[in-house]
Amino acid sequence: MERIPILRMGEYLLVTIQVDMHDRLAMTLQDDLTSRIAATGARGVLIDVSGLDMVDSFIGRMIANIAGMSRILDAETVVVGIQPAVAITLVELGMTLTGVRTALDVERGMALLRTTLLPREGEDGDGRVGE
Amino acid sequence: MERIPILRMGEYLLVTIQVDMHDRLAMTLQDDLTSRIAATGARGVLIDVSGLDMVDSFIGRMIANIAGMSRILDAETVVVGIQPAVAITLVELGMTLTGVRTALDVERGMALLRTTLLPREGEDGDGRVGE
Repeated sequence: MERIPILRMGEYLLVTIQVDMHDRLAMTLQDDLTSRIAATGARGVLIDVSGLDMVDSFIGRMIANIAGMSRILDAETVVVGIQPAVAITLVELGMTLTGVRTALDVERGMALLRTTLLPREGEDGDGRVGE
Repeated sequence: MERIPILRMGEYLLVTIQVDMHDRLAMTLQDDLTSRIAATGARGVLIDVSGLDMVDSFIGRMIANIAGMSRILDAETVVVGIQPAVAITLVELGMTLTGVRTALDVERGMALLRTTLLPREGEDGDGRVGE
């Protein structure tokens, strides 16, 4: 398996990272995700890392990169499901994920996106999930 | 990584299968999922297999098992994201996933659950995702 699935939920995209990332997989994910944001006009990206027991600086950097790219494409990134041990490791690695929002789980992450995103012009601001 | 994350989205649970299943991982998933259904009172389980390029009879059986267990716990299972090649393989293996609902993607799977699930007594039938 050489591709991380990206699930569309209304105007948000959900990425669940379960496997160890390596260079090529991370590049594929960045390509896929930016294409999907552009194609769907997604407003938010949820990255679920609850399946990761540990992170290294590579994953930390990848998440920061994805957040930066998404922001340029007008989509907010929320990282959800960070395990306590992972939070400790990230800070110890000096990666405080500045500019990346976090939430405890997907539900809270979606709620965060719903409350923080302003409606685009001509939209009612409600995700299709929220219909 | 020895655990597949189970994400709660309102009254549904979402499981994304990305990695090759083996016996122990499948058992852990069944344990985790049935516990979560019981703990959360989830009405539906979405199993996303869009990350799988191929399936074998083991995965097919596991999905059928999960659907059976969920049904006993009063939750409907919808398998989403089956790739065309996987559909071919499943039928060739003689596994037509009888009794398991399918949908093209997570959004359609959620819509299917919303339209088919009758509200439980004392509930308004709306998932929290749908608020």
